[in-house]
Amino acid sequence: MRVRKKPWAAQYIKDHADLIVTEPEKQLGHWQERFPSVQPLQIEIGIGKGQFIVEMARQHSDINFLGIEIQESVIATALRQLVESGLTNVQLVETDGANVDTLFAAQEVDQLFLNFSDPWPKTRHAKRRLTSPNFLTHYQTVLKQDGRIQFKTDNRGLFEYSLTSFNNFGLVFDEVWLDLHNSDGNEGNVQTEYEEKFSKKGPIYELIAHFDQTK
Amino acid sequence: MRVRKKPWAAQYIKDHADLIVTEPEKQLGHWQERFPSVQPLQIEIGIGKGQFIVEMARQHSDINFLGIEIQESVIATALRQLVESGLTNVQLVETDGANVDTLFAAQEVDQLFLNFSDPWPKTRHAKRRLTSPNFLTHYQTVLKQDGRIQFKTDNRGLFEYSLTSFNNFGLVFDEVWLDLHNSDGNEGNVQTEYEEKFSKKGPIYELIAHFDQTK
Repeated sequence: MRVRKKPWAAQYIKDHADLIVTEPEKQLGHWQERFPSVQPLQIEIGIGKGQFIVEMARQHSDINFLGIEIQESVIATALRQLVESGLTNVQLVETDGANVDTLFAAQEVDQLFLNFSDPWPKTRHAKRRLTSPNFLTHYQTVLKQDGRIQFKTDNRGLFEYSLTSFNNFGLVFDEVWLDLHNSDGNEGNVQTEYEEKFSKKGPIYELIAHFDQTK
Repeated sequence: MRVRKKPWAAQYIKDHADLIVTEPEKQLGHWQERFPSVQPLQIEIGIGKGQFIVEMARQHSDINFLGIEIQESVIATALRQLVESGLTNVQLVETDGANVDTLFAAQEVDQLFLNFSDPWPKTRHAKRRLTSPNFLTHYQTVLKQDGRIQFKTDNRGLFEYSLTSFNNFGLVFDEVWLDLHNSDGNEGNVQTEYEEKFSKKGPIYELIAHFDQTK
């Protein structure tokens, strides 16, 4: 998501250093210290304006959430939402989610959310897709043995690619949704801002999968 | 597909015993003897009126095709198409495709097509779906080591189920199409009668996968 630069963002982030991490490498292996209590840790890479992760935290007080986003103007808006919510089980991280393996110790994370990631539609950019094999290797490292990936997109090409990529990597599918908003049993779905807007234009796809630890 | 009984069907089938097999168990391990020359063997379970398999045979003279269909009235129409085509690289088989493992010797088949199979939408009927684990076991037995399954449907629920079922069974995905008729690179697609009609109402899904022989 590209947005206009917000002049207030940098100062706002500085003023709320208790809720947002800007030097994440220092937290490696110690993320739980940022929260009032040790609870399962779930992370979202690319949180946009943060609607999804803040609402997830509201609904699941027994889970600690980390929201990662590289764009300052965007994460500042998410931070404002978080400040207003008063929640203590969400922390934000201003950094590049591509480096997830340098941010977490092995098996430090319980679950990973990828929501409406950049599709990088050109074949020569396939390596940049957050569901490509190189990233899956990183996720496998930082996720617990039974850790899951929950991936949502409205981009058909990216979802076709990701189904094949996850499968070829050896991930085990738990659930596949090819039109999430028009399916029975989707009541637990928490929407992103983008999803609210674009689900009117076509299907939302979702894949939930976990790494096979018997191999 | 349910169709009206055709009074001419039984006699027509008898009259063309060179093109259609009604006692398939006798052919087990000897299917190639039904064709002018030994070539890779590809089978379709549930051929309907036979448009797909006859057209495939027309386009691929270097492959022997077997079309399996249980309903006499339906396969009789397919047989008529085949007779008119003059093709010698297609044979039809009037039997229940569910018993595929009793019809073929181990590794006798090179490729399997499942087109618009009955979705059996109720959960308690999941075992009857041709993409359920029990059938996958049969397919694995009769397919060659590098043998592929090509599965097409317009039924979203069946495709969601099948993606998970194939994945959990350990099949390796080669291609996934979530809207085959509106995608680049689909030029090789041969349509069934049903597909021609129903592709106007919604997306056609396709999954091509093979068994992983390294396990």
